[in-house]
Amino acid sequence: MASEFELIKTLFQPLSKGLSEDEIGIGDDGAVLSVPENQQLVVVTDTLVCGVHFPEDTTAYDIAWKAVAVNLSDLAAMGAKPGFYSLALTTPSNDQAWLTDFARGLADISTLYKIPLIGGDTTKGPLTITVTAQGFVEHGKAVKRSGAKAGDVICVTNTIGDGALGLLVALDKLPGLVKHDMKLEQQHYLLNALNRPKPQLEFGEKMLGFSNSAIDISDGLFADLGHILEESNKLIKTGEPLLAARVDLDNLPLSESARLYIEKTDDWKTILTGGDDYQLCFTLSSEQFVYASKLAEEVGISISKIGQMVESEIMKSDADKDVANIKLTLNDKLFNLGESKGYLHF
Amino acid sequence: MASEFELIKTLFQPLSKGLSEDEIGIGDDGAVLSVPENQQLVVVTDTLVCGVHFPEDTTAYDIAWKAVAVNLSDLAAMGAKPGFYSLALTTPSNDQAWLTDFARGLADISTLYKIPLIGGDTTKGPLTITVTAQGFVEHGKAVKRSGAKAGDVICVTNTIGDGALGLLVALDKLPGLVKHDMKLEQQHYLLNALNRPKPQLEFGEKMLGFSNSAIDISDGLFADLGHILEESNKLIKTGEPLLAARVDLDNLPLSESARLYIEKTDDWKTILTGGDDYQLCFTLSSEQFVYASKLAEEVGISISKIGQMVESEIMKSDADKDVANIKLTLNDKLFNLGESKGYLHF
Repeated sequence: MASEFELIKTLFQPLSKGLSEDEIGIGDDGAVLSVPENQQLVVVTDTLVCGVHFPEDTTAYDIAWKAVAVNLSDLAAMGAKPGFYSLALTTPSNDQAWLTDFARGLADISTLYKIPLIGGDTTKGPLTITVTAQGFVEHGKAVKRSGAKAGDVICVTNTIGDGALGLLVALDKLPGLVKHDMKLEQQHYLLNALNRPKPQLEFGEKMLGFSNSAIDISDGLFADLGHILEESNKLIKTGEPLLAARVDLDNLPLSESARLYIEKTDDWKTILTGGDDYQLCFTLSSEQFVYASKLAEEVGISISKIGQMVESEIMKSDADKDVANIKLTLNDKLFNLGESKGYLHF
Repeated sequence: MASEFELIKTLFQPLSKGLSEDEIGIGDDGAVLSVPENQQLVVVTDTLVCGVHFPEDTTAYDIAWKAVAVNLSDLAAMGAKPGFYSLALTTPSNDQAWLTDFARGLADISTLYKIPLIGGDTTKGPLTITVTAQGFVEHGKAVKRSGAKAGDVICVTNTIGDGALGLLVALDKLPGLVKHDMKLEQQHYLLNALNRPKPQLEFGEKMLGFSNSAIDISDGLFADLGHILEESNKLIKTGEPLLAARVDLDNLPLSESARLYIEKTDDWKTILTGGDDYQLCFTLSSEQFVYASKLAEEVGISISKIGQMVESEIMKSDADKDVANIKLTLNDKLFNLGESKGYLHF
């Protein structure tokens, strides 16, 4: 049996391909990389913990895919182009079959999104994967959370809630009523949304320059739209009206599977707060929506208008910070949703 | 009690200080940073797992210090100047006192080495800390492991083995004979070497440009000098003599505490393979040693010549890879040391 040192070399070193001659990937104390001229570096970090961020029976391939994908999704939200990534892998044992499957997952997503692995650390312990990814964005052009303006339309890419419902499938917790009517292929679709999210990098890059604010939806649309509001409201001056969001749930893009789930359960909370979407939520002035839709079409995705940023009736006071006021409507009626979530990105 | 979101903001956001106006630290999907002109980026990643890389009763302050320090040590080995770092913190619970102490440790080391925290992720799970740090080095000037040449003297900074002995103190595993003769302040010195390593950044930067190869000693001098040999031997052409290292243990710089330990136990293995030194091991042409010593003195450290790189009698064959031949002597006699270690950096 190969020692871990040999195993890592055999499995991970090939993933370092794609660097130029004056760069160093895996194999030294650190990687050495060049940053293109006039570009800024975008750095993102995300950790997946076994049993917390993915069910224990998730395949090594899917864990690897997701660990990279969730980071690329953060790069997408900033409008950044993928650069390179490092991996901190903590595993309870040196299981060759598991590591091989894990490396295959890394290889596939690294190749698809053209992002080399540049190094990292392997340690023994409870299964935990941290990826730190770097991307590039033209100097000063990164899309922030804080740029939303009153009048902006609020948009999302593709469909919302599939990852959260995928988790219900994975844990065999779909309500009987839903399970009875949901085809196996629909369940597979949801599982796939959970395990193999597709970061919206292409659209993210195109979005850069005309979108006022953006975030990737990892904690759930409700929480993440909340972050856009909080950050944007920080820039409002004392005495000026705070920004609020109005979201019409009738306009929320749902997959066929999610639509079935809602019809049977009316459980919007899972859709809006379950997270694991890895779609983008962004705001832009309403006259640019048609152009944005065209760009989305060009990269093979869809975008939907789900609501609008408005001036609220509340004036900002000195004491206000982190204000997020989201008003949800469904069938023209106010819709109430409790608060949620513990751990989060910072 | 503060929610975790508020807690993180209160504790970690102030550590983001030191960025320029066009940079973004904590609070968006990713951090946005500028890289100085003509500089390359050096990226390093290290994970600490509770119970594996530090004893379970280590204070939160010391864990935070060490998590950053071990990464800065990697930057030092490349000759890089510290840039910024991100933190992935997995904790079993949201313990305010623990997090506060942890943030204090981060703050102290971040301030000392002028390296802002730019973001990260907090997750729930078994205590694991991954830091990814970025530094800068002049284009093409990074000090690699692979540059050692026959005739180079092998040097280390300060003293070797104190971290490994500190672990014995922490676990109360010092042999009775040693413990009996070792003053409490000596034990504290060793514990401090384990818990609060000082990355050799200042000397690392000065070393850049005249040292042929370097590594930081985290896995133990024996293993890490081995890495220099392996990487340097990769550059040797087939048919040419492979590089080997001769190390004279009589010249190994030991603290008073480590000297006492050796006198009582003769256990060189712990000193050479215990790791956790975070000193630099580097090679340079022998005529530059005096100059290097002067530079070391300027930054308040010492360096010692412990051996030499030599041409071995073995010619490189096509099949050879990762060859590390280290000959140890003690009192002019050959000294034998078994192999060790499982998990490692890649």
